[in-house]
Amino acid sequence: MEIILEKANALLEFASVKVNDQLEQILPPADSKPVRLHSAMRHSVFAGGKRFRPALLIAVGKAFGEDVSKLIRTAAAIELIHTYSLIHDDLPAMDDDSLRRGKPTCHVEFGEATAILAGDVLQTLAFKTLADDSSLSSETRIRLISEIASAAGTPSGMVAGQQFDLDAEGLPEGATMEDLEEIHRSKTGAMIRVSARCGAIISAATEEELEIVSGYAAGLGLVFQITDDLLDVTETTETLGKTAGKDEAAEKSTYPSIFGIHEARNMAMGHYWNACEELERLDKPTEELQELLEFIMMRDR
Amino acid sequence: MEIILEKANALLEFASVKVNDQLEQILPPADSKPVRLHSAMRHSVFAGGKRFRPALLIAVGKAFGEDVSKLIRTAAAIELIHTYSLIHDDLPAMDDDSLRRGKPTCHVEFGEATAILAGDVLQTLAFKTLADDSSLSSETRIRLISEIASAAGTPSGMVAGQQFDLDAEGLPEGATMEDLEEIHRSKTGAMIRVSARCGAIISAATEEELEIVSGYAAGLGLVFQITDDLLDVTETTETLGKTAGKDEAAEKSTYPSIFGIHEARNMAMGHYWNACEELERLDKPTEELQELLEFIMMRDR
Repeated sequence: MEIILEKANALLEFASVKVNDQLEQILPPADSKPVRLHSAMRHSVFAGGKRFRPALLIAVGKAFGEDVSKLIRTAAAIELIHTYSLIHDDLPAMDDDSLRRGKPTCHVEFGEATAILAGDVLQTLAFKTLADDSSLSSETRIRLISEIASAAGTPSGMVAGQQFDLDAEGLPEGATMEDLEEIHRSKTGAMIRVSARCGAIISAATEEELEIVSGYAAGLGLVFQITDDLLDVTETTETLGKTAGKDEAAEKSTYPSIFGIHEARNMAMGHYWNACEELERLDKPTEELQELLEFIMMRDR
Repeated sequence: MEIILEKANALLEFASVKVNDQLEQILPPADSKPVRLHSAMRHSVFAGGKRFRPALLIAVGKAFGEDVSKLIRTAAAIELIHTYSLIHDDLPAMDDDSLRRGKPTCHVEFGEATAILAGDVLQTLAFKTLADDSSLSSETRIRLISEIASAAGTPSGMVAGQQFDLDAEGLPEGATMEDLEEIHRSKTGAMIRVSARCGAIISAATEEELEIVSGYAAGLGLVFQITDDLLDVTETTETLGKTAGKDEAAEKSTYPSIFGIHEARNMAMGHYWNACEELERLDKPTEELQELLEFIMMRDR
C-alpha cells in the first residue's frame, strides 16, 4: 500500500509540475494591469492545489499511449475551471469560507468584487486555452470545449450541483439519498468524469473505451466525494488546509451525517470496487489509474 | 432622422426576435431542476434587453451578404456573455444595483448565491453554444471562441475593464482621460468590437475588412459609452429602466463628470465621425451599420 501511495504521489507531483508550468504561461503576470485582478487570479490558481483533475486526465491519456505534451493544455484548462468554482464557492453569499488550501480565500485577501471577477475571468481563460491549443485538431478542440462546458454548465453539471447543494442546506428533514447522489454526481462528479473523458478523447479512444473510462471516473468521483465528507468530520482544519467541520455547521446533508461514518466508509468501498471493475474491462496499462483510485480512497487531506 | 431611427429600431426588433428564439432553445426550461437556477438565468436573459450586440453582429454579417441563420447562434452566445456580466456587475459587492431593464436585478429576485451561479453558467453556456454550432466549420468556431474569450477575459477585455472601473471609483483626484479611455475600451468596447468582428469572421471577411469593421465598432463603442454616461446624468430612473444618477452617487469618473455635458457630447460626436469614416472605406452596403450608429448617438435609453 505504501508503494502504491508513493507512486500516486509521484504522478500527482509530475502533473503538478507540468500543469503549473502551463498555468504560469496562461495567466497574465501579477504585476500587469489590472494588478489587483491578476494577483487575485494567481493567488487562487497557485494556492497549492493537488492538481488531482489534471493528474487524472494525464493518467488516462498515458494509459492510451498519448504524448503528455498534447494533454497538458486541456489539463490546465480544467484546473482553471476548478479554481474559478472554488473562488465563487468560498464567497460570503455561498459557503462563506475564509480558508482554502491553508491560505486565506480569494475574497478575504482581495475583496469580494475582485474575487467574483477573478473567478469569471479564470473561466473565460479556460475556454480560450482550449480554443488556442494548436497541438490538437480543430475538431478535437471543439469536442473538448463542448464536453467541458457540459460538465461545468448543464443541468447535470457542476454549477447545477452547487445550486442543488444550496437548495438542500438546512432542510429540516435532511436530504434523501437520491438528493445526495444528484448533488455529488453533478457538483464534483461531472468535472472529475470529464477530466478522465478528455484524456481519452485527446487519445482518440473508441466510444466503448470512452464509456469504460467514464464508468471508472464516476466511481472515482463518488469515492472522492465520500472521503471529502468524511475528512470534514474526522480531520482538523490544520491537516485539511481548509475549515474542518463546516458541513455540520452549515447543516449540510453529507454521507456521514445521513448514514454515519462506518456506513459511509462502506459506501466508498462499494464505489471503489465498481471503479476497479471498470478498469479491468480496459485493455490498456491502467496501473496509474488504479494508483489514483487507491490514493483517493486512502487520502488524509 | 426619424426614418433612420425607425430603420434602426426595425433592425433591433428583427435581431431581438431571432436571438430570443435562439436563447429560448439554448436555456433550460424554467421548470427543470434546479428550478431556482434556471428561473434566475431566464429572468435576466429575458429581462427586455435591446439586443444591441446581436443586432450589430447581424448587421455586419448582412453587409457582407451572409445568411442570418449562420449568424444567430454566435449572436446569442455574445448576449449570454453580456447578460452574465450584467448579473455579476449588479451584485452588492460590485455596483449594488437593484434595478435593471425596469425589473429587479437577479440577486434581488433570487438571492446573491443563485445570481452568482446564474452568471457563471450563462458564461459556460455561451461557449457551449459556440462549440456546438454545426452551421459553421470547426475552424470558424475555434476562431470565434478565441476572439470572444479574448474580448471577455484578457487584460484588454471586459472583466479587466470592470476591475479598472472598480479601482478608479472614489479616487480623490478623479480618473485621468487615459484611465477613462482604458476603462471604456475594455469594459464596454471589447464586447462591442468583438460582436462586429464575429459578424465579419463568419462572413469570411478579409483581414483588411476585419480591421475596418473593428475601427467602426471601436468608434461605435465609445459613442455608446459616452451616451450611456450622459443618460445617467440627464434621464430619470423611469425612462432608463435602471437606477439613474448612480455614477455620481458612486463617485465614478465619467465623461460628463470630468469634461461636463457639453464637451462630452462633442467627444461623442468626434467618435461618431470616426466611425462614419471607417464605414466609407468599406466597399459593402453599410446602411444598417450607419443606422445603428445614428441610433446609439441619438438614443434616450
